[in-house]
Amino acid sequence: PDAAALAGAGARNGQLTKPPGALGRLEQVALWLAGWQGTDKPHAGRPQIVIFAGNHGVTAQGVSAFPPEVTVQMVANFAHGGAAINQLAKAFGAKLDVVPLELERPTADFTQGPAMTEAEVVAALRAGYGAVDPEADLFVAGEMGIGNTTVAAALAAALYGGTGWAGRGTGVDDAGLGRKEAAVAAGLARHAAVLGDPLEVLRCLGGRELAAMTGAILAARMHRVPVILDGFVVCAAAAVLERSVPGALDHCIAGHQSAEGAHPRLLERLGKEPLLSLGLRLGEGSGAALAIGVVQGAVACHSGMATFAEAGVAAGS
Amino acid sequence: PDAAALAGAGARNGQLTKPPGALGRLEQVALWLAGWQGTDKPHAGRPQIVIFAGNHGVTAQGVSAFPPEVTVQMVANFAHGGAAINQLAKAFGAKLDVVPLELERPTADFTQGPAMTEAEVVAALRAGYGAVDPEADLFVAGEMGIGNTTVAAALAAALYGGTGWAGRGTGVDDAGLGRKEAAVAAGLARHAAVLGDPLEVLRCLGGRELAAMTGAILAARMHRVPVILDGFVVCAAAAVLERSVPGALDHCIAGHQSAEGAHPRLLERLGKEPLLSLGLRLGEGSGAALAIGVVQGAVACHSGMATFAEAGVAAGS
Repeated sequence: PDAAALAGAGARNGQLTKPPGALGRLEQVALWLAGWQGTDKPHAGRPQIVIFAGNHGVTAQGVSAFPPEVTVQMVANFAHGGAAINQLAKAFGAKLDVVPLELERPTADFTQGPAMTEAEVVAALRAGYGAVDPEADLFVAGEMGIGNTTVAAALAAALYGGTGWAGRGTGVDDAGLGRKEAAVAAGLARHAAVLGDPLEVLRCLGGRELAAMTGAILAARMHRVPVILDGFVVCAAAAVLERSVPGALDHCIAGHQSAEGAHPRLLERLGKEPLLSLGLRLGEGSGAALAIGVVQGAVACHSGMATFAEAGVAAGS
Repeated sequence: PDAAALAGAGARNGQLTKPPGALGRLEQVALWLAGWQGTDKPHAGRPQIVIFAGNHGVTAQGVSAFPPEVTVQMVANFAHGGAAINQLAKAFGAKLDVVPLELERPTADFTQGPAMTEAEVVAALRAGYGAVDPEADLFVAGEMGIGNTTVAAALAAALYGGTGWAGRGTGVDDAGLGRKEAAVAAGLARHAAVLGDPLEVLRCLGGRELAAMTGAILAARMHRVPVILDGFVVCAAAAVLERSVPGALDHCIAGHQSAEGAHPRLLERLGKEPLLSLGLRLGEGSGAALAIGVVQGAVACHSGMATFAEAGVAAGS
């Protein structure tokens, strides 16, 4: 972050007509934006949301309550403006882009072999990297991909160890949850040799939309565009960066704590406190999109409020 | 709430292109709005925020970090558009009204006698009742009044019993907190005879802006305008209704859990789970105003999303 911008924004924050600290987390959000945007007048009027979609060979293991055809159907729903994320993007004035990644060609089933070749994972990373608008002042990555909470659980387990990373996803029953856990365990066993290498973990256990989000979050860092992280799948893709270079996610805040069981645990590993916790478990970047409103509120206060001197208000003792 | 509207909205919610329940709390918010607005297509495009301001004789007890003059100075700041609530109102498209209540004539110090006469409390209740726009589709009451967290603590203690209701307010030190606690105890001792009567509690221990908010929240109920409750002071004013008629706040949700120490405890007494918890402790309706964005997101999803049939998306198993 830009130290001068941060200092300027901090000085302004201390003069605004409110008791010190009385806007709570909003003050921290405004300063975080100021630092990454490199201005003491942060803004959030040009947010971009990009939904990455992919299909997953691991659905052959019976890990989702929905058939894989739903991925392409939902992409059409995004195009026609009918999904939740379309409404949230409109509500908060965000540009929404949709990037389907070879939906007709699912990744390989990671319980049987590597999910992607090197060329495939690089193509997906590049697609994500190129999808970020450098002119955006806030970025949200979202995802759609039947089976991808299993993929995210495998990534989290590979990157952080431990078990119990699989969850209910779109709503599997106990038997489905058992199949998810078994698939994750099988994937980790098969790819045991690469677990120390985050990018190889992404290639062997990941999915195209997760790799694209990894690339997009990295691109946002390069362009100094602050990022609001969404739920479990997005955070798993982001974790690949954090495990590669600690601090790689300093330009990101957590927008929403999802109802997906292991998301709080993953946020804790990332050291991120979510802005919202409203029980969403939809994906599509929906929780982060909702948090855009909070960030816009923070920016509005920081940039629009009068100072004590301007307003002729007495400061506290 | 309107049972037919609620049923219609519930049926629509079940057909939207998302796994059942995947929008979490947003789904409940949309249904709550539908029931109180009496329509299966809830809306939140005409929110009204009213800030009530009052002055308090109990400031003579040294209970605030700011001098009482700040109340009228902040009212001027609201009028010139310089306060936090002005920015938040603009950010979420809310109409903002400000109702100063005889600022040149503070209430009496409740440690010495009743804060208001019967005529005074009735005038304040009426001012609040009349301030609600029946055409609004969402209502937020906010407040400004140096000393009013002490007043709110006295109300909460009188209505629910127990001690420890006083908090840091705008930022008093330990000595100031001790003076707040002493003032609350003195007020309860002086008015011990009326503690069983919520309206008498409001008259003897309350303040004009709190009584106005009590009246406004009641008016919103009569007009079927759903309410987002703000912080500790607003909830204390609302509690007068809940203690008079249980269920009187069913048209209200809690927008934000404030950093004021006893607010979580008061929300628990009211049976309200806050939408947000971002550490604000400013008053002005700011936490509830921020929650308008969440409610608008909920409404946008409920009213704008395609159904599975419309979108040609397969439903889950």
